[in-house]
Amino acid sequence: MTKILIVGGVAGGASAAARARRLSEDAEIIMFERGEFVSFANCGLPYHIGGDITERSKLLLQTPESFLARFNVDVRVMNEVIAIDREEKSVTVKNMLDGSVYQESYDYLLLSPGAAPIVPPISGIDNPLTHSLRNIPDMDKILKTIEMNQPEHATVVGGGFIGLEMMEAFHQLGIKTTLVEMADQVMTPVDREMAGFVHQEIRDKGVDLRLGVALESVKYHPNDSVVNEDAGESAEHQHLCGALSLHLNNGDTFNTDILIMAIGVRPETALATQAGLKIGELGGIYTNDKMQTSDPAIYAVGDAVEEADFVTGHQTLVPLAGPANRQGRMAADNMLGRDESYQGTQGTAICKVFDLAVASTGKNEKQLIREGIDYEKVYVHTASHASYYPGAEIVSFKMLFEPQSGKILGAQAVGKDGVDKRIDVMAVAQRAGLTVEQLQHLELTYAPPYGSAKDVINQAAFVASNIIKGDAKPIHFDKIDNLTDDQLLLDVRNPGELKNVGYLEGAINIPVDQLRQRMGELPKDKEIVIYCQVGLRGNVAYRQLVNNGFKARNLIGGYRTYTFARK
Amino acid sequence: MTKILIVGGVAGGASAAARARRLSEDAEIIMFERGEFVSFANCGLPYHIGGDITERSKLLLQTPESFLARFNVDVRVMNEVIAIDREEKSVTVKNMLDGSVYQESYDYLLLSPGAAPIVPPISGIDNPLTHSLRNIPDMDKILKTIEMNQPEHATVVGGGFIGLEMMEAFHQLGIKTTLVEMADQVMTPVDREMAGFVHQEIRDKGVDLRLGVALESVKYHPNDSVVNEDAGESAEHQHLCGALSLHLNNGDTFNTDILIMAIGVRPETALATQAGLKIGELGGIYTNDKMQTSDPAIYAVGDAVEEADFVTGHQTLVPLAGPANRQGRMAADNMLGRDESYQGTQGTAICKVFDLAVASTGKNEKQLIREGIDYEKVYVHTASHASYYPGAEIVSFKMLFEPQSGKILGAQAVGKDGVDKRIDVMAVAQRAGLTVEQLQHLELTYAPPYGSAKDVINQAAFVASNIIKGDAKPIHFDKIDNLTDDQLLLDVRNPGELKNVGYLEGAINIPVDQLRQRMGELPKDKEIVIYCQVGLRGNVAYRQLVNNGFKARNLIGGYRTYTFARK
Repeated sequence: MTKILIVGGVAGGASAAARARRLSEDAEIIMFERGEFVSFANCGLPYHIGGDITERSKLLLQTPESFLARFNVDVRVMNEVIAIDREEKSVTVKNMLDGSVYQESYDYLLLSPGAAPIVPPISGIDNPLTHSLRNIPDMDKILKTIEMNQPEHATVVGGGFIGLEMMEAFHQLGIKTTLVEMADQVMTPVDREMAGFVHQEIRDKGVDLRLGVALESVKYHPNDSVVNEDAGESAEHQHLCGALSLHLNNGDTFNTDILIMAIGVRPETALATQAGLKIGELGGIYTNDKMQTSDPAIYAVGDAVEEADFVTGHQTLVPLAGPANRQGRMAADNMLGRDESYQGTQGTAICKVFDLAVASTGKNEKQLIREGIDYEKVYVHTASHASYYPGAEIVSFKMLFEPQSGKILGAQAVGKDGVDKRIDVMAVAQRAGLTVEQLQHLELTYAPPYGSAKDVINQAAFVASNIIKGDAKPIHFDKIDNLTDDQLLLDVRNPGELKNVGYLEGAINIPVDQLRQRMGELPKDKEIVIYCQVGLRGNVAYRQLVNNGFKARNLIGGYRTYTFARK
Repeated sequence: MTKILIVGGVAGGASAAARARRLSEDAEIIMFERGEFVSFANCGLPYHIGGDITERSKLLLQTPESFLARFNVDVRVMNEVIAIDREEKSVTVKNMLDGSVYQESYDYLLLSPGAAPIVPPISGIDNPLTHSLRNIPDMDKILKTIEMNQPEHATVVGGGFIGLEMMEAFHQLGIKTTLVEMADQVMTPVDREMAGFVHQEIRDKGVDLRLGVALESVKYHPNDSVVNEDAGESAEHQHLCGALSLHLNNGDTFNTDILIMAIGVRPETALATQAGLKIGELGGIYTNDKMQTSDPAIYAVGDAVEEADFVTGHQTLVPLAGPANRQGRMAADNMLGRDESYQGTQGTAICKVFDLAVASTGKNEKQLIREGIDYEKVYVHTASHASYYPGAEIVSFKMLFEPQSGKILGAQAVGKDGVDKRIDVMAVAQRAGLTVEQLQHLELTYAPPYGSAKDVINQAAFVASNIIKGDAKPIHFDKIDNLTDDQLLLDVRNPGELKNVGYLEGAINIPVDQLRQRMGELPKDKEIVIYCQVGLRGNVAYRQLVNNGFKARNLIGGYRTYTFARK
């Protein structure tokens, strides 16, 4: 009889427990959770605060009782594992309810402790109006503060998933919101120019977005009023009422009524470190492709671990629910004698930001530069479904690939419709090892309400293949402000578009449909740098010019990419 | 200088013309279209009739003038190619406007004539209230009939894409509608049990759905009233006013005010046949993987051709816009000296049927049986995104695969949300050669508004992998009514569900969460045939029983699959 102990009862731990029981009736399975709740919907917390998910109970997916009934798992909430004795193969557990401490032995131990919100050592940050959001009690505290302090203004520090979701939650509650982000962009899984679409959306909704600044200090001003206990006012009420003044590192100062710190998470490695397990360079628990730590009897999964990156093979830290769940299942398999290998993390991610979705898979350009990986990229902006059918929205799509082999390195998309679908297609294609040239042949669902005969992905593949085959010579948005005297900027849109949407300084304008007649106006000794709105007409013009003996380049993704990169 | 003639100016032909020009400035390109319109949105026609696409002009994507300006293509509408002289490499063209006939020579000829609606030789079918729908003039005729005859009842014969879309268009116009389909299901790309969801949706909307019957004869009753030309009534008005009585082959008779024949299409092969080009066994123009016909100077693409099936490699006929467009592009490449190979058609398809989407890729079960290909299948019914987030809908998903290798053979899905996405994922996975086991590792976008940490596809892959590894022993919905005396039916749902949703006759009921305690009630000498609502709890029960020494099977897809197979 195998005895399995599991530390942590949310995504990875809960998946492992359920899978282990399905594989073995006689395994003894104990799951320790230091909090009050197991298997809750942590990704749903901001949506309950914002009111999309009205019933709190919907977030509680399982209880210790339901786990016992269905999976015969001994779930011990409010029980914290405080030490591991690897020699003895046992753990020390503290019962938080009565303070008692006891030992429990194991054949296999699974660590699924998750990651904790990083709260930087900022002066004044420890106050009753400042919160981070990881679990149900955190959510309850935020709700309580909102209820009691009736904030008119909220501040969120950090523009990642939780920061963006909390920003939207406050906005939805009618609370004026400031979002502070130290980087020059929100949603770092995508590149700066793709984040531009998100910045525009955030500002359009009236949120005060402050990029490139950091919170420096916080001052807590409790309300002056004294609690009137005779009138039934609780001391807690007073405690949660007041305001904060925030000081940013650019000198700005403003007041806010509630502050959410969401600058990121840090793997919970205290237990692993204490036990002498190997910690990776990125600060997560090291695991091999069996989800085993440096001790073969101890497995680890989820937000606390480092696993292999799908593209580079290097260790990576990706605190997302999908990998956690699959890793948990796989760890259970391996603990019970199977031989399953985790096949790397692409980091596929998506976030809703008001009406937009922003998503990515694989490596972004920043990471590729950092890793010294050679790449080429394309942008397309094309309709989510047939543009003549109601409800079509532009999908802005970026694809990164190896310049010679065409191997897919990563993809990003932003838009109001069909973003998840395109990144899912790319996630599968990348995992399957397809090249961008092979993407031309993808046969995706098409009917006017759902797609196009040439889908976004097909079109991006056409552009990429043109570049690989030498049929297109690209220039990118970040180079177009620095042309040389040997280059000439040509705008091939219609004059009305230039007037309405703007244009690049110094460009001459010949609409693509007049180009064949007016080619004589262009010099053959200069490189013609062509652009249009999204790159499509630019390509038609490029082919005309090159086939007529001109030197030319086309701005990939057109004026739209250029414009939003500056938002 | 290469001279390219193109027959047919819609999807395949128009794509080829545009691509050819991008590759070569000096090629002479002439595109003949016997109709009035080129490059119109044929997939949008039903949606203009139904009113979703309000402006007719939106369907006209290009004009001869716009094609000339942008691509320097000589577009000749109302010019029909009536003969090919392969020896001379020339075609005979009839100008439909003035009746003149002329020759045009070619280096390469591309046939993209499309497919024509099949109108069976039914008595009385040739009447002014009966239409099929292929092009803009057809659409205009239908609109005119609706306008003049003010139909209170419409009949659509044929439950394929166009039939379903026309049914919805009539329903949207407030016209009572009957849909007649000879097969026992609509939407034949999916299997009968998946079509059950669509049947339910159609009936729920109040459409009179008649399956398994055929139209036998039609009688046209023009209105008795005589045209009063003095009052300004046109003779056409009288002509389009009246009613039809329809007689079905089951003896039923009913009256209708407009009849749409949409039983399918037949490749336009007259020109190819006359020229002695090879016609395939399925009746389409034969093409190789270069999209070349049996004459190397003549290419053919789109609805008129047979190309290779992706799964079987056999010739197939797939009249869909996506393949047509990509084939056109590729034919242009090859005519201009490139070497591109078409990589087979999966037949990925989707149709909107009121609030449902129904979609498929690869082979369906009927085809696999017909081709004698060994297969296994799984069903899952799971939420389109996190079920605790508003708007989640059940995706009903079927996956077909090779029992040993796990190679993907096909997939089908029906539901109100996220259906296109799941079939796109499967289309990519199948094309990339992934196995169902590899699908377990897919890392798809997840945030509560978009997906689940374990997506529909991951879950289907888990079920399939369990079967392949012997961790699950399936039984399917079509076997469960014929159990032997050695089998015992066990319903593991809660008693309330049996009462509300129904149950299988003769089943004993032990809720899964009580099973471990009540196992003693079950015999060890019989095979326990377990079912629940969708198959998930059934699997938990199955693992419990098998790990405790029972023989068991689990109904894949549960009671839900069983129920809808009967709709």
